[in-house]
Amino acid sequence: MLIVQKFGGTSVGDLKRIQNVANRVAATKKAGNDVVVVVSAMSGETNTLVGYAEYFSKNPARAEMDMLLSSGERVTASLLSIALQEMGFKAEAMTGRKAGIITDAHHTKARIEEITPKTMQNALKEGKIIVVAGFQGVNVKGDVTTLGRGGSDLSAVAIAGALKADLCEIYTDVTGIFTTDPRIEPKAKKLKRISYDEMLELASLGAKVLQNRSVELAKKLNVNLVTRSSFSDEEGTLITKEENIMEKPLVSGIALDRNQARISLMGVKDRPGIASDIFNRLADAEVNVDMIVQNKAHDGATNIDFTVPVGDLRDAKVVVDTFVQSGEIEDDSYNEDICKVSVVGVGMKSHAGVAAKAFSIMAQENININMISTSEIKVSMVIDEKYAELAVRSLHNAYELDK
Amino acid sequence: MLIVQKFGGTSVGDLKRIQNVANRVAATKKAGNDVVVVVSAMSGETNTLVGYAEYFSKNPARAEMDMLLSSGERVTASLLSIALQEMGFKAEAMTGRKAGIITDAHHTKARIEEITPKTMQNALKEGKIIVVAGFQGVNVKGDVTTLGRGGSDLSAVAIAGALKADLCEIYTDVTGIFTTDPRIEPKAKKLKRISYDEMLELASLGAKVLQNRSVELAKKLNVNLVTRSSFSDEEGTLITKEENIMEKPLVSGIALDRNQARISLMGVKDRPGIASDIFNRLADAEVNVDMIVQNKAHDGATNIDFTVPVGDLRDAKVVVDTFVQSGEIEDDSYNEDICKVSVVGVGMKSHAGVAAKAFSIMAQENININMISTSEIKVSMVIDEKYAELAVRSLHNAYELDK
Repeated sequence: MLIVQKFGGTSVGDLKRIQNVANRVAATKKAGNDVVVVVSAMSGETNTLVGYAEYFSKNPARAEMDMLLSSGERVTASLLSIALQEMGFKAEAMTGRKAGIITDAHHTKARIEEITPKTMQNALKEGKIIVVAGFQGVNVKGDVTTLGRGGSDLSAVAIAGALKADLCEIYTDVTGIFTTDPRIEPKAKKLKRISYDEMLELASLGAKVLQNRSVELAKKLNVNLVTRSSFSDEEGTLITKEENIMEKPLVSGIALDRNQARISLMGVKDRPGIASDIFNRLADAEVNVDMIVQNKAHDGATNIDFTVPVGDLRDAKVVVDTFVQSGEIEDDSYNEDICKVSVVGVGMKSHAGVAAKAFSIMAQENININMISTSEIKVSMVIDEKYAELAVRSLHNAYELDK
Repeated sequence: MLIVQKFGGTSVGDLKRIQNVANRVAATKKAGNDVVVVVSAMSGETNTLVGYAEYFSKNPARAEMDMLLSSGERVTASLLSIALQEMGFKAEAMTGRKAGIITDAHHTKARIEEITPKTMQNALKEGKIIVVAGFQGVNVKGDVTTLGRGGSDLSAVAIAGALKADLCEIYTDVTGIFTTDPRIEPKAKKLKRISYDEMLELASLGAKVLQNRSVELAKKLNVNLVTRSSFSDEEGTLITKEENIMEKPLVSGIALDRNQARISLMGVKDRPGIASDIFNRLADAEVNVDMIVQNKAHDGATNIDFTVPVGDLRDAKVVVDTFVQSGEIEDDSYNEDICKVSVVGVGMKSHAGVAAKAFSIMAQENININMISTSEIKVSMVIDEKYAELAVRSLHNAYELDK
């Protein structure tokens, strides 16, 4: 098998941990696999460098930041390669450039456009373990770029895709994806397999492990992702395409998103295109609108409720205010004390009644549902935040996820 | 003027010092000059990285070491560029690659083969201050290489040559080159100007400031070098071609080299080619032979005395032993308690009597001269180490270098 293994900052947090990573990589190689390793900077290193830059400027140039920040991963990659060579393996450290990672020109948040895997393929043919500095690439001008948050995961997934690897293992300090947050429901169980789409809907459960960008890329490139812990030998969670999951559970997990705020617009004037005006203006202001509910009010006017991430609330208010001042909206109100609970599972596609069950559980617990949105594999409900834990535990129990 | 300024590790040892460097660069730019800055890693950083590598291996691969060590200079270059931009200047940080520094393939001790200055020239045309990560380049395969000890100085001199800069300023923590070591002779004076050849002969006086490799490159590329301190505004020492020095002093300085050992070979068999055999074998063993004196002994055999750096003594003994065992040398002896005192000055070329004066000063002080070697601009004498300071002070005084 050809396996791409990615180790994050805590996994390579000090020299002893880098040696542990070397041992793990060595074991994978000895088992007869080809291995490409992608590494992050040693934990804390990137923050130290950002702190250095901020000493000089509140708003440092992005090209300079990329040259600065890309150095951390180079250090880890060189050291891991040296460790593997010392253990008797053929190994080669590669920068993003050498690994053939070409990105667009957006410094500090570049997107991978293409991978030219020739150099890596040749090294693999020579029996080498390749150690790639994650998080970085080069633009067409040849300048180093970085990929933004979760960038090393993206490097690993893109490399796995370009090399048609059998597996892309993402190592962190957690053992996998759980049916729900174990801090809320200690009976939560680790999932063995889950589809890309479920993973995307369960984002909050994987927040510490995987960013949606990486899952989306894995889905696009058809890469089998495994999240597992670098500190144990426990099996992780395989994230793969739906066809690879034989027993499709009705419900895979319960996700909770506390980072939501609700905006209520009362008495929105009934003229054609007004909703489109409002939401276009919000999009222009880069406000991320999630759920929207509209209903008739008095005098032909309507009420519109929608949710946004708490961080976007201020920008959203600015937009809404202009409509209030022009008289097109009568009144507005804001509520940050809400949360979104989601029931996720590919099995829903073929089974009716999953949503109905969720609503009846909420009723049973006397939890009022403010907003509802559904998709083929998900039911999301906005409720008062004070009920968050109760809702998660009740749903986890009702769908027998602890079994 | 186009000025290349190079700042070493102590000059960029912490963030405050990097800001000081930015202020100095800014002042040079404001005075109407174009400026290219070359920086080393923050002091201690390279040692830290070497220590990391040694945790994993006593003998880490050189390509990996280059990827590891080259990161330090990238950090400093990015930070200095950010500092300059914050002060309102147009600035651009460049890696060795971007600056167009092409080297041979010898990782960790590469030689600069060529500089393609196009990118730098364009940036200068745009009015930018260029900040180059020193110590590094790329080989023809595109892999990063480093230039070995004093590598950032070499980067600066080579860039000054390629851009035909008017001046290449090397900033360290000392103010320039002195007529002799001020720790031995407090009356030593800083030299205003000195020729490349004198500087090469006075190597020991510039040891903390400049390596001979950089001076040789400056001579070859006809670069006007200035060594000065980044911690004061004092003028430094200009190292330039002899023609640029109008008043040629008879003697420029007195150098002392304590790092010498003498090897005496007694009763060397008188067969043709034996001396050539001995010294070829020493060269093969990479022993650096400095002075050689040969004189007739008994029975047609000869005695040969020569000096080597103390560090090469062990390797030299191994070679000599094989000749002793084969009977071609009767006996050998070794003396580490010697030193070499040199009187250096371009004026000697046109003035007789400089050497004679040196010998008579030694006689006057009752210092026995073991070996002598002379060149057009230098008289070197090997003496017992215990007389080192006395010899230096007497010569410094005799040639009136304190005037």
